[in-house]
Amino acid sequence: MTLQKQMTVDGNEAAASVAYRINEVAAIYPITPSSTMGELADEWSARGDLNIWGRPLTVVEMQSEAGAAGTVHGALQAGALATTFTSSQGLLLMIPNMYKIAGELTAYCMHVAARTLATHALSIFGDHSDVMACRQIGFGLLSSTSVQEAHDFALIAQVASFRSRIPFLHFFDGFRTSHEVAKIEVLSDDDLRALFPEELVRQHRDRALTPDRPVLRGSAQNPDTFFQAREASNPFYDACPAHVAEAMESFAKRTGRKYGLFDYYGHSEAKRVIVLMGSGVETARETVDYLVSKGEKVGVMAVRLYRPFSVEHFIGALPKSVKSIAVLDRTKEPGAIGDPLYLDVIAALREAEDLEQLPFPMPRVIAGRYGLSSKEFSPAMVKAVLDELEARQPRRRFTVGIVDDVTHRSLEYDPEFDIEPDDVVRAVFFGLGADGTVGANKNSIKIIGEETDFYVQGYFVYDSKKSGAMTISHLRFGPRPIRSTYLIKNAGFVACHQFHFLERMNVLDYARPGAVVLLNSPHAAAEVWEKLPRDAQEQMIEKKVKLYVIDGSSVAIQTGMGGRVNTIMQTCFFALSGVLPRDEAIAKIKQSIEKSYARKGDEVVRRNWAAVDLTLENLHEVELPSTATTTRAPMPVVPAQAPEFVQRITAVMMSGKGDLLPVSAFAPDGTWPTGTTQWERRNIAIEIPIWDPEFCIQCNKCAFVCPHAAIRAKVYGKDALTGAPDAFQAVDYKGNDYKGMAYTIQVAPEDCTGCNLCVNVCPGKDKTNPKHKAINMQPLSEHAAIERPNFAFFLDLPELDRTALPRLDVKGTQFLQPLF
Amino acid sequence: MTLQKQMTVDGNEAAASVAYRINEVAAIYPITPSSTMGELADEWSARGDLNIWGRPLTVVEMQSEAGAAGTVHGALQAGALATTFTSSQGLLLMIPNMYKIAGELTAYCMHVAARTLATHALSIFGDHSDVMACRQIGFGLLSSTSVQEAHDFALIAQVASFRSRIPFLHFFDGFRTSHEVAKIEVLSDDDLRALFPEELVRQHRDRALTPDRPVLRGSAQNPDTFFQAREASNPFYDACPAHVAEAMESFAKRTGRKYGLFDYYGHSEAKRVIVLMGSGVETARETVDYLVSKGEKVGVMAVRLYRPFSVEHFIGALPKSVKSIAVLDRTKEPGAIGDPLYLDVIAALREAEDLEQLPFPMPRVIAGRYGLSSKEFSPAMVKAVLDELEARQPRRRFTVGIVDDVTHRSLEYDPEFDIEPDDVVRAVFFGLGADGTVGANKNSIKIIGEETDFYVQGYFVYDSKKSGAMTISHLRFGPRPIRSTYLIKNAGFVACHQFHFLERMNVLDYARPGAVVLLNSPHAAAEVWEKLPRDAQEQMIEKKVKLYVIDGSSVAIQTGMGGRVNTIMQTCFFALSGVLPRDEAIAKIKQSIEKSYARKGDEVVRRNWAAVDLTLENLHEVELPSTATTTRAPMPVVPAQAPEFVQRITAVMMSGKGDLLPVSAFAPDGTWPTGTTQWERRNIAIEIPIWDPEFCIQCNKCAFVCPHAAIRAKVYGKDALTGAPDAFQAVDYKGNDYKGMAYTIQVAPEDCTGCNLCVNVCPGKDKTNPKHKAINMQPLSEHAAIERPNFAFFLDLPELDRTALPRLDVKGTQFLQPLF
Repeated sequence: MTLQKQMTVDGNEAAASVAYRINEVAAIYPITPSSTMGELADEWSARGDLNIWGRPLTVVEMQSEAGAAGTVHGALQAGALATTFTSSQGLLLMIPNMYKIAGELTAYCMHVAARTLATHALSIFGDHSDVMACRQIGFGLLSSTSVQEAHDFALIAQVASFRSRIPFLHFFDGFRTSHEVAKIEVLSDDDLRALFPEELVRQHRDRALTPDRPVLRGSAQNPDTFFQAREASNPFYDACPAHVAEAMESFAKRTGRKYGLFDYYGHSEAKRVIVLMGSGVETARETVDYLVSKGEKVGVMAVRLYRPFSVEHFIGALPKSVKSIAVLDRTKEPGAIGDPLYLDVIAALREAEDLEQLPFPMPRVIAGRYGLSSKEFSPAMVKAVLDELEARQPRRRFTVGIVDDVTHRSLEYDPEFDIEPDDVVRAVFFGLGADGTVGANKNSIKIIGEETDFYVQGYFVYDSKKSGAMTISHLRFGPRPIRSTYLIKNAGFVACHQFHFLERMNVLDYARPGAVVLLNSPHAAAEVWEKLPRDAQEQMIEKKVKLYVIDGSSVAIQTGMGGRVNTIMQTCFFALSGVLPRDEAIAKIKQSIEKSYARKGDEVVRRNWAAVDLTLENLHEVELPSTATTTRAPMPVVPAQAPEFVQRITAVMMSGKGDLLPVSAFAPDGTWPTGTTQWERRNIAIEIPIWDPEFCIQCNKCAFVCPHAAIRAKVYGKDALTGAPDAFQAVDYKGNDYKGMAYTIQVAPEDCTGCNLCVNVCPGKDKTNPKHKAINMQPLSEHAAIERPNFAFFLDLPELDRTALPRLDVKGTQFLQPLF
Repeated sequence: MTLQKQMTVDGNEAAASVAYRINEVAAIYPITPSSTMGELADEWSARGDLNIWGRPLTVVEMQSEAGAAGTVHGALQAGALATTFTSSQGLLLMIPNMYKIAGELTAYCMHVAARTLATHALSIFGDHSDVMACRQIGFGLLSSTSVQEAHDFALIAQVASFRSRIPFLHFFDGFRTSHEVAKIEVLSDDDLRALFPEELVRQHRDRALTPDRPVLRGSAQNPDTFFQAREASNPFYDACPAHVAEAMESFAKRTGRKYGLFDYYGHSEAKRVIVLMGSGVETARETVDYLVSKGEKVGVMAVRLYRPFSVEHFIGALPKSVKSIAVLDRTKEPGAIGDPLYLDVIAALREAEDLEQLPFPMPRVIAGRYGLSSKEFSPAMVKAVLDELEARQPRRRFTVGIVDDVTHRSLEYDPEFDIEPDDVVRAVFFGLGADGTVGANKNSIKIIGEETDFYVQGYFVYDSKKSGAMTISHLRFGPRPIRSTYLIKNAGFVACHQFHFLERMNVLDYARPGAVVLLNSPHAAAEVWEKLPRDAQEQMIEKKVKLYVIDGSSVAIQTGMGGRVNTIMQTCFFALSGVLPRDEAIAKIKQSIEKSYARKGDEVVRRNWAAVDLTLENLHEVELPSTATTTRAPMPVVPAQAPEFVQRITAVMMSGKGDLLPVSAFAPDGTWPTGTTQWERRNIAIEIPIWDPEFCIQCNKCAFVCPHAAIRAKVYGKDALTGAPDAFQAVDYKGNDYKGMAYTIQVAPEDCTGCNLCVNVCPGKDKTNPKHKAINMQPLSEHAAIERPNFAFFLDLPELDRTALPRLDVKGTQFLQPLF
């Protein structure tokens, strides 16, 4: 057993790091959430990183996953060690080649960040529906539950494949594992060399197609011979589980990390057992540990080698005391009697029973579905499943994690059930997509992971709207490996990097009693309380939080950091969270700054250091009053005039509570009303374009180029201006066609993303100051108050009755006249 | 119930005929064995055939099945009634779109001729591996067992889909059903209109995407809502089996043909039951009928609605007496505990047992695999499976139809077991691919099917080598619908349309005692006996066959029919088989000739009629002697010097006995030695090119263009001519480079296909007779005897030692000099 280095990486990097070093070719076509694997391989290859035989990986990007699979097939037949990385629909495109690769008993391991297949809707998130669409092919399927396993199994699966000649699909949960950052023990090149001996590679090379020893592969067969030839592979599948077990044993000998084909955790005399695979195993294991410590006889069975499915190993791993089993599938196969793992478990038990090899009476087995499209799977849900197993008439089919008010198959669970030990630090950060919050948090994890003995975990909840949507960072640090593959509920530290989020959703929901709450606030410490919405005030008081505020933006400006508040907020976190002693933490941040920015020059390092120092001076605790004081009504999520569907569905999703929507909220075929985005004002611009009619040439280019249709132009009769807000601007229309009419360019401040395109194309400018154009970016806060009513008035302006007017002269700039 | 017209068609046409008439769009990309469906749809559309709403189908051929599936998805979303036809890998390419179509609950029915997926080897033949790769998608899967059902279920599946909104994949066995010709009752347009009411179409139209009533479909969802939305479709799947049952009931009311979701046949107190789907059901049903008549308590359960799988209907359809069940899957999923239907049956039984809804004690269930890649599935195999169920320790996993000497999972069966009733006429015809035998037999079936009350069945065994390979036509006619979905073993009529087949394989194996054997023989009746190989003589005597011969080719020449012997051999069949009274049969053939050829003019009709008449004069019975007389040794299938693999494997396959090869004969990964085709002399040319050196300009173009490399050129030292056969031709080499050497162009008569390309390109000609070239096609029979030894000698000529000779002058025609 060799001492292993540690590193803090996400699941994709953990898997790719091994795959890169033990292969020669990767044919890729990146697809979320596996993209990172392909991109890293490409980057490392371009940089000249070497595999364990001293050569960089050859990375080939194809036209689609179908081509990638074909390239892999060809490379393998030529005797190369080839791999690929994919997910979801990408995996579906590989199926035809996978049948060939398996049929030809090709040593090969591919890596899949398991992801939802598009059905009634696309989802980029994680579940096992893609992998399950491949279970019939004849690949070995090895399932990782954590970042560490994604690293370890990337090796074990490949070794098992080269030993057994059964190709392997190694998979882990998309996002939950692929994007979770954790501290893992790293397999060194020497480990890889020791566990993946050259002899296996030589055997693979010997099977290659080569003109030197020509054989034919890929023939066509007729009914006379195909069936017999197909059965000839049986011994390889029969032997495969033993090869995997051997690969796991050698692995354990060298690394100390022990894995089985099926691993049982829990009470040695458990009566109730959950069977599942993927990241949910970690949560189930943590929950079972907790319940066992409370005296419950429960357990969890982790399925690692799903194909070939070894009935003998499965039965052997179950505790003999088992009375009932809940099989949890993270996929949905409509029309099947049950989802795939359930069918396998039933068959395994029946076979063993029938052969009189079942060392206990036939247990009751029920089947549940969980976690589709990365739906949260928490200890509370694990407990609900175990509770269901105790019911006199447990539901034979259930879902968990949703409210099914249509077919009533969902289990209830107690959302308050919390089992996390106190010595694990939990922190939650609310940021804006692309505002640097996630990056800063990844940095914090790396500091803690690499500079302390703590185990760490970082998980980042993105909206698929990407840039400009909310991100929530979930960070855990603790003395033991962290198995909590679910979101943080009761955080000891809650940071809100965007003050206006407080209006939109209750970030205090995430705080446990006594938590530290950090707000980046444009308001001074003395004034901030009054600016808080009432429900935030109430929760703060109720939970007795410690409230800290900092005007991060002003510190950034003072220290020459521009708009970048990352380092500042990160410093606050270290200062307040107590993960590290404050001085030590500051020193580590400064070290980290030096490491990151040294090559950008001393000045940048100095500025960042200054920001760190100034941060602490500007970080203020706010004394909580004893009662809530805000009287203004909370801003509604959507205006009262929004349609019923938007009120009932969209608004709930917008306020971050979409998980609470029941099944009946959704059309069964994925149909959605159109035009709902108009009610989903994102309000993400920091600066918006402001119209200066004096210099406007009325070309309408700004309205034409706006990618979000947030700038609009109208020509209208001047009588319509009656009742206009004071600040509403209008000028005479310049064209001859609508002589005497008024003209307005108006921005919709809530729709603008601040992209600046309008300013770039604007040809109208103040000749005395060419930087001042007819459209100019200005801070939103100064203008929002007037621009919102202006836009509302603008929207109500009557449409031109074009039929009553002369035809538009479609010439020159006028063809740009929008129809709005 | 309306009276239905009958027609004699294959499964593809049966399905396409319905699909065409109840759809508006077909997006196709033809793939064997479903091609016919797409091609017919295309042909009918081009011809202007109308659907039941009076319009032709719009047929769109895409770049692949992926595009076809996308086109279908789009058409459906636009409210059109769309369909497609596919198989095998083609179906795999449709999977991504199928997930969308199902997720959106789209009324849609596609038709699949189920076919083997390529694994260790490609196979164009039939099994369920393609359909099973789609069982997780959420499509309804409805399985047809016969040509009649392919017709009926094409309607039922579509009606069920439009009632339930679950898209359907209707499938039947590739080749066995898709290419079987049978007499069926035809659904009229009125039937289709009555059973597929416009109301269902209107509902589909109402769900279309249209700018008039805009909705969004195909959105992206995040973890907050995807899972709930996915569960919203449950009620549709729950209700689907009832919709199918209703569609079947309405169907039965109108047509009298009754189907259930699961149909049980056999003894009402059966103890042993086989569960399967597809064409094997027919054979199993026939066998069960036979065994029940012998007093055995056995039964068969036909699975028709495989998805959604209704546990309730399945359990309800089983006889309460059942003690043991054999589930037969026509697919192989390596690494799974069992193949898919087996897993489902196990789960269904366990569920019912656990819910105390199993009306009998838990039966023993074993799992078998059969019929991969159209491997024969016969009554003998059905019996072997039922026998295995009686064993005290039946094999839990078995194969049937092969000899597995590697993992020893195959059941033994009695190949002599025969249950076919005597009143079914069975006839087998051996022909050459593209020689017209299959066409003539299809014509005979149509005559009998349409002109008599007999039910008919025609099945045609092709080699995937297609043109020039052997075809075996299996024809049955009888008073009841024919359920024998297996090849004929004991035929009452055996016709060999190519005399030389007798040397290659024993066609007498197919003859039952007393059978009529018809030979197309170039030898006169008085001489033919001596020309027969000894084993044919022996079997003829042993089986007491009635031997008839005709020199079909000479009759064809005499009546101006050229080389076409189809009509002649067909006439012999009718004259001898006794399917119809001879005179009546002759009249029907003549009618049929008139129908087919009337538009080609009276002369053609007259010639054909004359051929019919002359046929009977030239058809002679041969009196069998009491003992075999031939003493010459049978020609070996491959020469003695062929390598061991060719002797052991290829030769067996060449002699039509590949089915007997055991599993151990095959490399487990599909690897095959190269160069085996050189031992597989096809001998299919009627004429071969003969070299006339006098006019040869030594350009080598003939050798260059030959697509089968059957013409070769050599330059060699004249001393090598020592020992040349007398007929071996050599001339002086004309070039300057190899001055004084000899030159020969030689044809390999056994490899030549008679394509004539060499003659077309030959520039050397006799100026006095320009039709006479340096290469001329001449009848093989006149030359084979000399050309075979010539070619053997030619092959042995020494290779030029090019290094010792001046470099080739790469100029003019000389660049064509082959390296051979």
